[in-house]
Amino acid sequence: MQKPLDRRTLLKLMGAVGAAAVFRPGLAQAQTPTADQVVAGKDPRLLVLSSRPVVLETPLELLGRLPTPKEFLFVRSNVDYPGGNTTAPLPVQNWQVRLEGLVQTPLTLSLEELKSLPQVEVEMVHQCSGNGRSFFQPRPSGNPWQHGGMGQVRWKGVPLKLLLERAGVRPEARYVTGVAAVEGDMRPFEKSVPLADVLETAVLAVEMNGEPVPAIHGGPVRLVLPGYFGVNNVKWLVAVRLEEKESTNPFQAPSYRIPFRASQTLPIQPGSTYDFTYENSRPNWRQNVKSVVLAPASGAQVRGFVRVEGLAWNDGLAPLAAVEVSWDGGRTWRQAELEKPASPYAYWRFRAVLALPRGEHTLLVRATDELGRSQPLNGNIYWNPRGYEWNGVDRVKVTVV
Amino acid sequence: MQKPLDRRTLLKLMGAVGAAAVFRPGLAQAQTPTADQVVAGKDPRLLVLSSRPVVLETPLELLGRLPTPKEFLFVRSNVDYPGGNTTAPLPVQNWQVRLEGLVQTPLTLSLEELKSLPQVEVEMVHQCSGNGRSFFQPRPSGNPWQHGGMGQVRWKGVPLKLLLERAGVRPEARYVTGVAAVEGDMRPFEKSVPLADVLETAVLAVEMNGEPVPAIHGGPVRLVLPGYFGVNNVKWLVAVRLEEKESTNPFQAPSYRIPFRASQTLPIQPGSTYDFTYENSRPNWRQNVKSVVLAPASGAQVRGFVRVEGLAWNDGLAPLAAVEVSWDGGRTWRQAELEKPASPYAYWRFRAVLALPRGEHTLLVRATDELGRSQPLNGNIYWNPRGYEWNGVDRVKVTVV
Repeated sequence: MQKPLDRRTLLKLMGAVGAAAVFRPGLAQAQTPTADQVVAGKDPRLLVLSSRPVVLETPLELLGRLPTPKEFLFVRSNVDYPGGNTTAPLPVQNWQVRLEGLVQTPLTLSLEELKSLPQVEVEMVHQCSGNGRSFFQPRPSGNPWQHGGMGQVRWKGVPLKLLLERAGVRPEARYVTGVAAVEGDMRPFEKSVPLADVLETAVLAVEMNGEPVPAIHGGPVRLVLPGYFGVNNVKWLVAVRLEEKESTNPFQAPSYRIPFRASQTLPIQPGSTYDFTYENSRPNWRQNVKSVVLAPASGAQVRGFVRVEGLAWNDGLAPLAAVEVSWDGGRTWRQAELEKPASPYAYWRFRAVLALPRGEHTLLVRATDELGRSQPLNGNIYWNPRGYEWNGVDRVKVTVV
Repeated sequence: MQKPLDRRTLLKLMGAVGAAAVFRPGLAQAQTPTADQVVAGKDPRLLVLSSRPVVLETPLELLGRLPTPKEFLFVRSNVDYPGGNTTAPLPVQNWQVRLEGLVQTPLTLSLEELKSLPQVEVEMVHQCSGNGRSFFQPRPSGNPWQHGGMGQVRWKGVPLKLLLERAGVRPEARYVTGVAAVEGDMRPFEKSVPLADVLETAVLAVEMNGEPVPAIHGGPVRLVLPGYFGVNNVKWLVAVRLEEKESTNPFQAPSYRIPFRASQTLPIQPGSTYDFTYENSRPNWRQNVKSVVLAPASGAQVRGFVRVEGLAWNDGLAPLAAVEVSWDGGRTWRQAELEKPASPYAYWRFRAVLALPRGEHTLLVRATDELGRSQPLNGNIYWNPRGYEWNGVDRVKVTVV
């Protein structure tokens, strides 16, 4: 999988080292920082894809523990919150969240008020839009995620619905826009999702895995949208705005968008360019059906039976119907055993035991849900310029000796 | 599959008989008319689901011949064209089609002009939106289609794009609206589809299977949209209008719509009611992935190997990846052999030969395309009040003796 570094990557890495040097002045310039050097409290085995803004990938071998411990959880920040590169709480006081826009009565709630309201918990897959980007050909721009831009997190907080019942929603409201705090030279960050879609599920989270939400993961308050890609779960939340239309923030468009297939005759050609507008594209909102093999590792040598294990999930709109394994290139598929998820939005663990003859085999794994949504055999068919939403059938090479 | 008739069905059938009596005055009132009595030139084996407007279903055993002969092709009319209940051409003169709305130069073309322009041919699946409706539970209202609201047709005519190049499209144009002729007491009929989606594929058809388009199938000119459900292929076409929005004709909304899942947290519950608006629903435009077993017939007794044959298709956006058969309730799936379709919009024939032990078996068949779109194991998950777009995994019981 290793390729020689091209000049662009090299320059990027040098930039990353420079950034790390700012807060780790003792570090030698020529050395890439480790994850724990980039974010205090992270496991050093995480891969540093970028250190300004912080992007850390969880290696495949750390993905199996659920919920994902904060030390292991991937990071994809589009902006860095000053002093926020830590798994400890953000060192701030008097945090407030506004409820504004198309409401009858705008509200402002302190962190203490949010904590004093009735709380709900939801355990869910938390995944970067670009997770799996490296498998697209040609390689789209952006962080070269393999499998580890994901994890499973247990959030706790106040249901958005409860706050909306207090504030009163005006009938024209169609979108919920999360607004992140701006400190120092941070770029303003907003993301919008359809109100009807998230009304029953959105949470203003104040805890992650039983602790205050870590600074690096958007504490003290993060908007949490089960079933949605991570970017929509706005960190460092200071406002929730109801609107008739999607936000005009550049993270809503042109960033984080997919060519809009519903009004296109064919998916766009791999490698083509695309001039994203609100009209010709959709935001990458809901996670698609996907499965990832955790074991055997690709290239593994196995004696006796082959035990295939991994994680599968979708957007929580319907249960998975099956995870299937093929060892003959997709001619035959056999159902794996499925373990019920912690919630409709969480991973389903799967396991299959195969008796295969000696030699090299490529295992294919695909998930299908009760809506008949499945994974493409060749994920590249969904190639898009930003490399979002990879969900191709996972392939693992294994040699039976 | 036979159930006793309820009172409502009985009254409907009596209505059908009454209607038939209008144009077949010699027919005894108590007798249901046969398809050839309802539409001159149709095979009498077609099932008469309604005779005003005409609705005829093709029995499963007649679906295998491709392209579907005009004698066998299903009929679903929402309105009856006076004198149009025949597979002969419509007895009219001086037919004209207007190109209007958001164009630079409106055009009016005679049938002769249309025939003199460059022609293209497309062979495609032609399917009623309600095909398979009978398999939804509870039974939605509407014609009780089983499998035979479909066929494959070879259309020939003028590409819409050629006419639009002449007329010049104004940049605000988003939808193409087909407008049907109104004669006698016909209700005005219009349907709209996204311009970007059909620009390269729409045809103003003047021939069907090598002959003038039969009156009952919308001749002399029918708008043909490969990949789309039949209702969008407007019969007796007199105008194509470019617009910024969908038509306000009642066949565009509230009829022929699906609850809009993209902004719903969950599919609606089977049996629930729904107040369709443009905002909370989508038109049923593109055909979904589907497969139908032609043989063995359900309930068949088979000696030796079981030969499974049928048809599979999608909306033509991507090739099918596989048609798979299971004989163990979906635990194991085996690929059938696929025959390349006549066009991206046509049926793929599939065949599989299974060696099964003696006894009763339920065969499951599902198609999946290269986009990873597949069929739900339980099609009822897509229940909707009008019973559109059934594409559940097909099931056939067979006894090996």
